[in-house]
Amino acid sequence: MSQATRQQAADRVMARADALAAVSETPDALTRVYLSTQHLQANQLVGQWMSQAGMTVWQDSVGNICGRYEGVQEGAPAVLLGSHLDTVRNAGRYDGMLGVLTAIEVVDSLHQQGRHLAQAIEIVGFCDEEGTRFGITLLGSRGLTGTWPESWLEKCDASGVSVAQAMVQVGLDPSRVALAARNQDDFSAYLELHIEQGPCLEQEQLALGVVEAINGARRLNCRFTGEAGHAGTVPMSHRKDALAAAAEWMVMTESATQRHGGNLVATVGELRCLPGAVNVIPGEVALSLDIRGPQDAPLDMLLNELLAQAQSSATRRGLDFSAEEFYRIAATPCDARLQALLGEAVDSVQGRTLSLPSGAGHDAIAMAERWPVGMLFVRCKGGVSHHPAESVMAEDVALAIEAFKGAVERLAS
Amino acid sequence: MSQATRQQAADRVMARADALAAVSETPDALTRVYLSTQHLQANQLVGQWMSQAGMTVWQDSVGNICGRYEGVQEGAPAVLLGSHLDTVRNAGRYDGMLGVLTAIEVVDSLHQQGRHLAQAIEIVGFCDEEGTRFGITLLGSRGLTGTWPESWLEKCDASGVSVAQAMVQVGLDPSRVALAARNQDDFSAYLELHIEQGPCLEQEQLALGVVEAINGARRLNCRFTGEAGHAGTVPMSHRKDALAAAAEWMVMTESATQRHGGNLVATVGELRCLPGAVNVIPGEVALSLDIRGPQDAPLDMLLNELLAQAQSSATRRGLDFSAEEFYRIAATPCDARLQALLGEAVDSVQGRTLSLPSGAGHDAIAMAERWPVGMLFVRCKGGVSHHPAESVMAEDVALAIEAFKGAVERLAS
Repeated sequence: MSQATRQQAADRVMARADALAAVSETPDALTRVYLSTQHLQANQLVGQWMSQAGMTVWQDSVGNICGRYEGVQEGAPAVLLGSHLDTVRNAGRYDGMLGVLTAIEVVDSLHQQGRHLAQAIEIVGFCDEEGTRFGITLLGSRGLTGTWPESWLEKCDASGVSVAQAMVQVGLDPSRVALAARNQDDFSAYLELHIEQGPCLEQEQLALGVVEAINGARRLNCRFTGEAGHAGTVPMSHRKDALAAAAEWMVMTESATQRHGGNLVATVGELRCLPGAVNVIPGEVALSLDIRGPQDAPLDMLLNELLAQAQSSATRRGLDFSAEEFYRIAATPCDARLQALLGEAVDSVQGRTLSLPSGAGHDAIAMAERWPVGMLFVRCKGGVSHHPAESVMAEDVALAIEAFKGAVERLAS
Repeated sequence: MSQATRQQAADRVMARADALAAVSETPDALTRVYLSTQHLQANQLVGQWMSQAGMTVWQDSVGNICGRYEGVQEGAPAVLLGSHLDTVRNAGRYDGMLGVLTAIEVVDSLHQQGRHLAQAIEIVGFCDEEGTRFGITLLGSRGLTGTWPESWLEKCDASGVSVAQAMVQVGLDPSRVALAARNQDDFSAYLELHIEQGPCLEQEQLALGVVEAINGARRLNCRFTGEAGHAGTVPMSHRKDALAAAAEWMVMTESATQRHGGNLVATVGELRCLPGAVNVIPGEVALSLDIRGPQDAPLDMLLNELLAQAQSSATRRGLDFSAEEFYRIAATPCDARLQALLGEAVDSVQGRTLSLPSGAGHDAIAMAERWPVGMLFVRCKGGVSHHPAESVMAEDVALAIEAFKGAVERLAS
């Protein structure tokens, strides 16, 4: 690709991201949820762009927008490129969309040259990754893998409308969900380009990086139970202060996680203090723990260590500690061959590559259950995502398109 | 006093505390607030008991119930005994009331013997110490000291009824508040008996103790401001986690307060975490600090140390820290002579005495602005107060009456 060509492609991606950002249920805050009018409008726009890039386009039975660019021989297996087109509320305009729009540029560039590769290229714009409307995530990619649980059709949004009802409202047939599933040998690989949603590339002054794994995660509701008491009358030595115990544990959690290294992260994001009055020693503290890492074994080792510390600190203070895991997702390693291939492509456009974990979840988690997956990360400003301030640079997008194209061409040839 | 006599007196106190506990705005949860029907009913009951003990009884212009037992010569200065008759919501039955009821027994015992001392004895049942209804405290004792600010009459309860309106509703004249003020030479001393509201006497297996000082207190609203972030994508080393900083500070606060000793206590009772989601690094934490001690200088030294630690810990982490003091009350030392006198009286009934600070506020804080004050503490079960489980033993009350009587007789002779 000439520098001018790739810059044109990047400018088109930026303009299309702006156009999609206008397709929102609220004018001032980008929000586009599954099975909304805006979902269909976005599919229509993206479908047009796919057509212009020489692709056959269809919307599948769960609402994903799909395009296929044939290989030399019709019906060959495809390299699948994709990401999602739905958003959180008051979202940024690149999380998800950037992966679909850059994929279209990859195909468009081949189409402009009249080239077809050994394998076909397909692109999917997933209809729901964020789970904003129904509180269940990865609906689009689980459509392709054929792993929708029966119960999903009955899940309701905040207004009490079920997935099945909402499907009917937009002209989809809930009895045909299973038809979205693709065969194992339809695809040789799934590649997803996404904004990093973290600060690592920016810190390293790099436009692009290759994902080694999508972090596994565990979430727990934890509780220290001590004894409430009068803040003035109970001497320090007689206290069973649940917040003091929780504070000690949070300090341990931070330092143990740093000590373990290995890209592990641990966060206490919520904390409630009971009874919660300025002049009452807290008798109970409920707090969340979110812990993530690119490999399950070190993650579980850290988690066990933290829980043991909480228990022993509580016991030493005469308190009770309990913890209940309410969410667990295994780490998703990216395919080694695809990592190497993406790494070479990145290296060729920016002189070096960086391997990093993905802290956030992606459609690739579901896709990895059926196909080898690879992910390419693009630097975003300040690591900010899920926010209107989400921002990428057109220069970075130009490099991303070139690297993405390089990897896809090698893979599909 | 014979053991039988003092046990009878104690039993009467327990029965009267039960009778007062029935005077409540809610049948299942003792609540008796200033200028309520129940306030007047309690005054009437207590006034009857004062009369039966040979006292002249009146209700003063702010609603305190007062009684006077003359000395040998009519019009002599008096030793004033008292505590409060109002309660928090869902209160115990001894906090305040015990001091008034035991004082009546002291007078009754003299009255039974037909004895009069050199000084008179007065008893006051203060109408408002807790501040439950209007959010301002010590209204009864500040009536006697003549230090009601003008603004108090306009303070409103949760229903928008002002103090002035509520006074009119119960037949008091808001323009006559100042008439409740007493002259400096009306009283030689103020003595208050109160439940400890803390666990120290119980730990020491003692029924009684003598208060050295009512703790000074400072309350602050504190805030750590960092940067919210994605719990999965921001590496530990890049975080500006406001809760991690707050946790570090809470641990320092606990250990520094223990290290300082001197009966200092520090409590973080409230903590709010923003944005407060399981998967978001807290960008801001608002927390309260309540710090108390029997002497102002060491208290301020500790407070300054804690604020400096918060500041330096925030700076090291790249966060901001701010603190705003919204409440400050100086420590109230008890009069040395009265402490010695009460100590001897306590020693004579239980073989030893214990000097301890009062962690909670009392009417004695206001009274100390005009008169020497002394306080006698009675053990309460588990240190629990402001709760229906508040409990004292009749045997302790018997000892308390005897010690209280001994001190008052020596003081008034």
